[in-house]
Amino acid sequence: MSLGIVFLSEVFGTAMLTLLGCGVVANVALKGTKGNSGGFLMVTWGWGIAVFAGVFVAAKSGAHLNPAVTLGLLVKQSKEYAPGVPVDVASTFTYFGGEVLGAFLGAVLCWVAYKQHFDAEPVEANKLATFSTGPAIRSVPWNLLTEVIGTFVLVFVILTFGGTPQQLGPLAVALLVVGIGVSLGGPTGYAINPARDLGPRIAHAILPIKGKGSSDWAYSWIPVVGPLVGGSLAGLVAFWVPAIMPAIAG
Amino acid sequence: MSLGIVFLSEVFGTAMLTLLGCGVVANVALKGTKGNSGGFLMVTWGWGIAVFAGVFVAAKSGAHLNPAVTLGLLVKQSKEYAPGVPVDVASTFTYFGGEVLGAFLGAVLCWVAYKQHFDAEPVEANKLATFSTGPAIRSVPWNLLTEVIGTFVLVFVILTFGGTPQQLGPLAVALLVVGIGVSLGGPTGYAINPARDLGPRIAHAILPIKGKGSSDWAYSWIPVVGPLVGGSLAGLVAFWVPAIMPAIAG
Amino acid sequence: MSLGIVFLSEVFGTAMLTLLGCGVVANVALKGTKGNSGGFLMVTWGWGIAVFAGVFVAAKSGAHLNPAVTLGLLVKQSKEYAPGVPVDVASTFTYFGGEVLGAFLGAVLCWVAYKQHFDAEPVEANKLATFSTGPAIRSVPWNLLTEVIGTFVLVFVILTFGGTPQQLGPLAVALLVVGIGVSLGGPTGYAINPARDLGPRIAHAILPIKGKGSSDWAYSWIPVVGPLVGGSLAGLVAFWVPAIMPAIAG
Amino acid sequence: MSLGIVFLSEVFGTAMLTLLGCGVVANVALKGTKGNSGGFLMVTWGWGIAVFAGVFVAAKSGAHLNPAVTLGLLVKQSKEYAPGVPVDVASTFTYFGGEVLGAFLGAVLCWVAYKQHFDAEPVEANKLATFSTGPAIRSVPWNLLTEVIGTFVLVFVILTFGGTPQQLGPLAVALLVVGIGVSLGGPTGYAINPARDLGPRIAHAILPIKGKGSSDWAYSWIPVVGPLVGGSLAGLVAFWVPAIMPAIAG
Repeated sequence: MSLGIVFLSEVFGTAMLTLLGCGVVANVALKGTKGNSGGFLMVTWGWGIAVFAGVFVAAKSGAHLNPAVTLGLLVKQSKEYAPGVPVDVASTFTYFGGEVLGAFLGAVLCWVAYKQHFDAEPVEANKLATFSTGPAIRSVPWNLLTEVIGTFVLVFVILTFGGTPQQLGPLAVALLVVGIGVSLGGPTGYAINPARDLGPRIAHAILPIKGKGSSDWAYSWIPVVGPLVGGSLAGLVAFWVPAIMPAIAG
Repeated sequence: MSLGIVFLSEVFGTAMLTLLGCGVVANVALKGTKGNSGGFLMVTWGWGIAVFAGVFVAAKSGAHLNPAVTLGLLVKQSKEYAPGVPVDVASTFTYFGGEVLGAFLGAVLCWVAYKQHFDAEPVEANKLATFSTGPAIRSVPWNLLTEVIGTFVLVFVILTFGGTPQQLGPLAVALLVVGIGVSLGGPTGYAINPARDLGPRIAHAILPIKGKGSSDWAYSWIPVVGPLVGGSLAGLVAFWVPAIMPAIAG
Repeated sequence: MSLGIVFLSEVFGTAMLTLLGCGVVANVALKGTKGNSGGFLMVTWGWGIAVFAGVFVAAKSGAHLNPAVTLGLLVKQSKEYAPGVPVDVASTFTYFGGEVLGAFLGAVLCWVAYKQHFDAEPVEANKLATFSTGPAIRSVPWNLLTEVIGTFVLVFVILTFGGTPQQLGPLAVALLVVGIGVSLGGPTGYAINPARDLGPRIAHAILPIKGKGSSDWAYSWIPVVGPLVGGSLAGLVAFWVPAIMPAIAG
Repeated sequence: MSLGIVFLSEVFGTAMLTLLGCGVVANVALKGTKGNSGGFLMVTWGWGIAVFAGVFVAAKSGAHLNPAVTLGLLVKQSKEYAPGVPVDVASTFTYFGGEVLGAFLGAVLCWVAYKQHFDAEPVEANKLATFSTGPAIRSVPWNLLTEVIGTFVLVFVILTFGGTPQQLGPLAVALLVVGIGVSLGGPTGYAINPARDLGPRIAHAILPIKGKGSSDWAYSWIPVVGPLVGGSLAGLVAFWVPAIMPAIAG
């Protein structure tokens, strides 16, 4: 499979992910929507099904949708990122690029879908929250650690999926994302995906959003570095402890 | 398969869809029900499972239940709407007719099931909301755009289902509908289906509902045109970009 | 398979159903529980998963768990109630008996599990609500009609399950029950099962519940007759319209 | 399979279980989190998906994750705890040890992930609730009985899973745990697993948690003994009544 197809596939899939994911936050956070104040559980289902939809769309490229997943597979020394896509420098950066671009485009579409509510919303922070994550209590080391742990769970459990017979398809990762959200999303809003946070943050910075405030670039590196570290750790453990994870041993 | 069977199948399935779908809105919106003020997440699960049930009932005709799905398959230049049902003018209008009639009948049944609560409810807008969608902030171009985006997601992701192994059956589309609801339902209440909106609106206009107000025909064309455009776009993309969607290439 | 096994299987399965089903109502309605005021959506998930668990337990007898399902299969002129269990007068009453006895026993266990909260709860109606359903607005014809419609949906969709490939097992009926609850449970609390309502109502009448009030026998026939009519109608339609439902034709 | 692998597998899986499970309680209960006051339904989904993730991680050892499950299999006189793991004294204690150690480690990780919110939370009881269960109304016999019933349901239904065709994999037990939570979690917070309660309670006692109060050791034996009795009863019934449970007969 050509890297162009991989790129397109990840762009489409990650755009689907952030269109639906940012969308549910917009629905809960912005003024006058029908789902306003719908609650945290609704937000987590929204992101879970956003992943669900994105995985179907990007099936051909293995549906990474997340640089932390790509990096986890690299560190685990997988031979292929998807059937017919060897792991090398070019393919790695193709995934990274497609993921970030897709995440950017999905956030733009979300802004279009909720344009009137962005215009009506008076609070700057609610607008940024629709695009990117932010900490409940700001602290570089603890916020970073929470993102490392959350992303470790994501990538590590994904790497064990093959070891248990089931026919859930993308539902397995969707439920996992719901679970990470409700369980580990409390302190930082669970980016657990550098593209999901960075792409929409760029969109927030560029788009002519009425009454927007800062894009909080001071925080922006944490939801990039934390997930990359967490995904790498998951890949390392999966590489060194294959004995307990039959799906990974092959 | 005869078109009469296709018609009956779509009537039964779409009636199931709007009986359960309009039902959950009635439960949340009308006075004195046990689920009153149950929240937006409950509404989206209700519509998701409404689709779930409708797909089982209309399995024989491929369970379109939605003119935007039918149109998407047409634009994608599919050869069949369901096994043994060729795509042509007669079959297309058979689907359209069955979908709208079924949606009308389901809404009538919903009114019967909740008759006492329609009688008890004092607010006109809550009665219409049980039947049809309406915008949170009224605006022809933006409401239309939101419906186009939401329906594009619905039809496009459905068209990719075959590319990923899973045995979820109708649960896949049910979850997708839950996801579109929580994520993109905020501005317009996510019709994403011309029949789902038009059929119940006709029921609202015809039925002797106590103290009913306007059926809001001024808005009624938006949840028809928007979804038809969104479904067509999804079919177009699926036709032109099969490379990234193996399920569609065949 | 002997009718004794069928009886035991249905007793165990239906007891599981009402233990978990009545339990979620107790959790939401009784004073001082951890899930107090947990909302209608939580109640519907509780009943859905109660059916899920009951179906696994009663798999050997086909897991009817509900006289309306048994009657629907009878009216549809099925040959067997489960593999090796022919449809006749003796087997029909064996199912009915096991279902009602099981539902009674599950409600007794629920009372034991929540004993302290039944003691602490001051409102009589909340205690009865844990056992049996009651109307939001009392009216013989409309309450009956709502139960007929809800049970028709339950039995009719179950009868179509075989027509669509999926490997959801008991999850399909569990989700259907969640959907009927959120969508059609508003007026009567969705008995949709004579045993689920009658068995626990007998338990309410017999058990030495502290400060209990009336068991509301005046209403008790509606959640018995309504579901039996709804299930029969579903069986009739399934018998006469097999053309659109391939799963039923065989 | 060596007992060392069994041990490691259960440690990893049970750590995943309590990291996510304690995490959702932290998110709902501790000051300043994004999911604060998210409701009981969110808590039950969190624990359900915690089990879901843990089962994938511990697939190789059969994913007991719970001494009550191990004991249930022992009492049922199963020949193996997992493929290649015979039931004997050594393997039984290996499971017990791995489960409790894993549950301890997961709780430590949860504390790290929510460190700032533990520091910010003023109420001692909310901190302990994140680690271990406690009764809504304290009473040795009734609390014990509720835990016995809840765990009986868990182990008994798990033992019947094989009797019904489905491809849900770990989703079946996840949904069951959600159901036990919403339905039987009201009086005691549903430990239904000695390791899930004891491991985190030890963590609470040992960790330097700011402003922590008592670890409530007076209650601690109930969520250990109750689940062990409930699991044993489920194993006994499964051993003596195989006729109605084909999955157990083999």
